[in-house]
Amino acid sequence: MPSDAKHLHRGLSHTPIHSVDLGEAEAFFHQHAAENMSAPDAEERFSQALVEFGQRGIFTHTTEELEFGARLAWRNANRCIGRLYWRSLVVRDRRHVTRADDVAAECVDHLHAATNDGRIRPVITVFAPDRPGRQAPRLRNDQLIRYAGYQGSDSVVGDPAQAEFTRWVESLGWAGKGTDFDVLPLVVETPEEGVTLAEVPADAVLEVELTHPELPWFADLELKWHAVPAISSMPLRIGGVTYPTAPFNGWYLGSEIGSRNLVDPDRYAMLPEVGRRLGLDVDDDRSLWKDRALVEINRAVLHSFDRAGVKVADHHNESRMFMAFVDKEERAGRVAHAEWSWVVPPMSGASLPVYHHYYDESVQLPGFLPAGDWSPPSGEAGEADSAGGCPHHAGGTA
Amino acid sequence: MPSDAKHLHRGLSHTPIHSVDLGEAEAFFHQHAAENMSAPDAEERFSQALVEFGQRGIFTHTTEELEFGARLAWRNANRCIGRLYWRSLVVRDRRHVTRADDVAAECVDHLHAATNDGRIRPVITVFAPDRPGRQAPRLRNDQLIRYAGYQGSDSVVGDPAQAEFTRWVESLGWAGKGTDFDVLPLVVETPEEGVTLAEVPADAVLEVELTHPELPWFADLELKWHAVPAISSMPLRIGGVTYPTAPFNGWYLGSEIGSRNLVDPDRYAMLPEVGRRLGLDVDDDRSLWKDRALVEINRAVLHSFDRAGVKVADHHNESRMFMAFVDKEERAGRVAHAEWSWVVPPMSGASLPVYHHYYDESVQLPGFLPAGDWSPPSGEAGEADSAGGCPHHAGGTA
Repeated sequence: MPSDAKHLHRGLSHTPIHSVDLGEAEAFFHQHAAENMSAPDAEERFSQALVEFGQRGIFTHTTEELEFGARLAWRNANRCIGRLYWRSLVVRDRRHVTRADDVAAECVDHLHAATNDGRIRPVITVFAPDRPGRQAPRLRNDQLIRYAGYQGSDSVVGDPAQAEFTRWVESLGWAGKGTDFDVLPLVVETPEEGVTLAEVPADAVLEVELTHPELPWFADLELKWHAVPAISSMPLRIGGVTYPTAPFNGWYLGSEIGSRNLVDPDRYAMLPEVGRRLGLDVDDDRSLWKDRALVEINRAVLHSFDRAGVKVADHHNESRMFMAFVDKEERAGRVAHAEWSWVVPPMSGASLPVYHHYYDESVQLPGFLPAGDWSPPSGEAGEADSAGGCPHHAGGTA
Repeated sequence: MPSDAKHLHRGLSHTPIHSVDLGEAEAFFHQHAAENMSAPDAEERFSQALVEFGQRGIFTHTTEELEFGARLAWRNANRCIGRLYWRSLVVRDRRHVTRADDVAAECVDHLHAATNDGRIRPVITVFAPDRPGRQAPRLRNDQLIRYAGYQGSDSVVGDPAQAEFTRWVESLGWAGKGTDFDVLPLVVETPEEGVTLAEVPADAVLEVELTHPELPWFADLELKWHAVPAISSMPLRIGGVTYPTAPFNGWYLGSEIGSRNLVDPDRYAMLPEVGRRLGLDVDDDRSLWKDRALVEINRAVLHSFDRAGVKVADHHNESRMFMAFVDKEERAGRVAHAEWSWVVPPMSGASLPVYHHYYDESVQLPGFLPAGDWSPPSGEAGEADSAGGCPHHAGGTA
């Protein structure tokens, strides 16, 4: 089929160009039919879609197609180590929701459904695609829950990765409390309403305060992290149609919090403080003080989540689960693609089975697309984080 | 220039096909001239080489060209984190050496020169290329120093990675002592002499016994490792000519010994023993006992090498040195290519600056080629390790 049946959306000036691809559409209908007994005949379904496309410039996936496509997008997520459970993804079809406050409310409902009192469920909420003449809503947050970062003269309170976004929402009238862990508001943009801010209510944000199984002083650091990593910046592409707003979550891999979010020099940068409290010589890297502090922070994360009854994966077990996923895909006659630098966890790499394999790194669709080039409008153009996250675990590499 | 002026070597049946590439030759002469004031005019030099090639089917690099080419091969080694010192490579031109016992003796001399009483020097010894009608000597070891692996009925004494090679040299008449750390003989193959074994004399093998800065019981494990990692299985390709036998070494990165050689499940697999001695619950991966044992083994390696006065890099400093190399290359108007999965050390990945960058992974020449498909001739065809090592640090990934 021709794959050049594209159209250009002329919405807001910063709107990325989305296109309907009929070749992709046909291939998806075939995949749907091949993997699902109850799916309609692929060519009949494609003919239907062509008719609708001819009339409206877009076509509409059935709810079953949307569900299957979203699950495939997870199965195809090369950067995600947690894909063994791709069939369990809860798909919330919210394509009919268009008003900004309704979008925000659905995001809050998403968090409740995903949090599930700590027994985290993988959930995706799919909002409408753009269609000719009508731009669908956009979420401007990169995750549904993020902590604000307040840039001071020579340091940041909170999460430095959110300093630019925080400055922007402040310019729109938002005021945080100024702590290290203020949850940012949701920012929804629609063509009719422009930009709308909405607080995430506290009861939708389960958080875990960090303590250590053996070191009482760890609690004095007053660290915590939220339970649900829900990426909201990656468009979902199914069968030739892009769903620009489709927040999704899995549960955390402990080392994303313990080796990246709390540790990266441009995030919470806790290694030196923990190293000093451990009594290590933090002036001599060769003493491996960083490696030792890293292990203790990660022990605290796993211990605290476990104690709070909040689901979190450890990198050893998750690495084994990933290899089980690879095996299972092979038994199904498929090949699990993966990006090595993303699926290998950020600590103790070589001690994990996932390290000792090569993977096909090429991209398959349906899938999650890299976050667009949108960034908070400001004097200094922000550097867009186009790396794109992992649909199961937030965080990420390089 | 034409790059198809190739010829086929019909030597021993397992000889890989090498070819002279005149396009590569010309490019190399230009690079030599561009980076070296004293180099001859590139086109004149190329004309000379063409004449020689027309007469002999090969042409001869000058010693200066060989030196510069070997250093470039290190600079271009995408898998090596230790390239900042590429200019310091000592190049031993041994293209005139052809008899097996002389080749072995030169390898022993190489080890003496490289060991340098613990102040390890990066050294490469370049033997002859094949030429039409004459196959040059081959070394069949993958490193100049390797510990034998003796396959028992359900376990291996020594290094399991060398079990197949050990069985082969035993079939050729070698007999080791049967300890965990018997140095394998050098195996040289020439068309005239066939396969020749030569012991590596003990005084050419500096070894470091491992102790821990705080844990006295660590010495009871009776672990040790050799000081010089000298890869001998990767052909060197300079200016269109392949040098099949060109052993080279740098100094060790501690984590290659402490996180790979002594730890990989298919190597010395020491994690469980160290975990138990540390009093950790080795039945619960979620306790991060592996991560903790890993840190202590690596502390022992760095501590023991330092105490013995043997040069070894730690992954924190080496990662910074690599970033300095990347900067330096940029200032010279070049781009440092690298394979992310190899230059990121095997532990505490995200705590190292080298982790937080993308690299151009494409291959540049001159360079070291992947180890050929030669493997010890035996009933069961051995799996060739074609992954190829790192020219500065032995060991490696995936």
